[in-house]
Amino acid sequence: MDFSSKYLEKAVLEISGLPGIGRKTALRLALHLLRQDGSEVEALAESLVDLKQKVKRCTSCGNLSDLDLCEICSSTSRDRSLVCVVEDIRDVMAIENTGQYKGIYQVLGTLISPMDGIGPSDLNLQSLIDKATAGEVAEVILALSGTMEGETTGFYVYKKLKDYSLKMSSIARGIAVGDQLEYTDELTLARSIQHRLPYEQSLQQNRS
Amino acid sequence: MDFSSKYLEKAVLEISGLPGIGRKTALRLALHLLRQDGSEVEALAESLVDLKQKVKRCTSCGNLSDLDLCEICSSTSRDRSLVCVVEDIRDVMAIENTGQYKGIYQVLGTLISPMDGIGPSDLNLQSLIDKATAGEVAEVILALSGTMEGETTGFYVYKKLKDYSLKMSSIARGIAVGDQLEYTDELTLARSIQHRLPYEQSLQQNRS
Repeated sequence: MDFSSKYLEKAVLEISGLPGIGRKTALRLALHLLRQDGSEVEALAESLVDLKQKVKRCTSCGNLSDLDLCEICSSTSRDRSLVCVVEDIRDVMAIENTGQYKGIYQVLGTLISPMDGIGPSDLNLQSLIDKATAGEVAEVILALSGTMEGETTGFYVYKKLKDYSLKMSSIARGIAVGDQLEYTDELTLARSIQHRLPYEQSLQQNRS
Repeated sequence: MDFSSKYLEKAVLEISGLPGIGRKTALRLALHLLRQDGSEVEALAESLVDLKQKVKRCTSCGNLSDLDLCEICSSTSRDRSLVCVVEDIRDVMAIENTGQYKGIYQVLGTLISPMDGIGPSDLNLQSLIDKATAGEVAEVILALSGTMEGETTGFYVYKKLKDYSLKMSSIARGIAVGDQLEYTDELTLARSIQHRLPYEQSLQQNRS
């Protein structure tokens, strides 16, 4: 592609550096921005700079926050002895949206993935180990993706914490509520049979 | 979605204002930017502001340019009596990429679309009419999309220019080179039969 404007070319190059955005989409977005008011484009640009400069990680859990301590960690209504281990802020948001969880989080920031060169030392786990050492943690819930990376990471966290006197659990894998059995993949189905619940207990779950 | 950082929320809101980008994608892009160096994010933001502030429309043809006159209009090797009418810069780039066209362009900027409130007065057409009035134009080629909006706009441009002594043509509609007949839509097929070429002429086309 030959551009008639080098500023347009630069913008398309920068935008197409974003994940999942190719050059055609980048050009479409750039042309869209050209049709907007200057103030709107400046607001977008400023929000990106602010994002990078002002958002930090909570020193306690690693979640994204504007302050040193995130809202969840600084809340007095949270059970600080219950820690849910997740990959990133999207998982925190998903669990918060259920309105069911009243503990705090440990946001690892990534999952172990040797293929991508991400090892155990890249996990934000030390602050949880420190809390466990201080005897502040009663239960850890692993809420990681059901992928190979999620399972590997879960096992690593388990190994690091198993010698402390705390309960460890993993969120249930199974068939989603409302899902049809015939469209479920075999591994999930096999697991959900393996980890079957006493019927009375499953009734209670459905009721709650 | 409840965000733990208002700067993150602001950035997601701004990014999801772009066409074709929803809130989930916007969040993914924002998290990607958070993982980048500050200098990279600033380069992106700066390129967007530059795009809006420095790119202008060529005063002659309406194409995007860094100067008052775009490279094509200011080139001495171009045939200024041959004008190709297109919708936007992407069409200019597509035609330039064929390497076959040596005339200049008239970039309308949009197509007539009453549904979107875009009328004939929104077209960047006056500079072409001025050129025609000055007798500078020998031929006008309409290269607009094969959509209803494209055809309507083409007919409007034709009406505006038909009283000047100049040739007017439209790019051929038909079956794409390499396309299979059975997968071509009926309208295109009907048109390509209607506008069939003498065989000798089609042979010459294929050879060139």
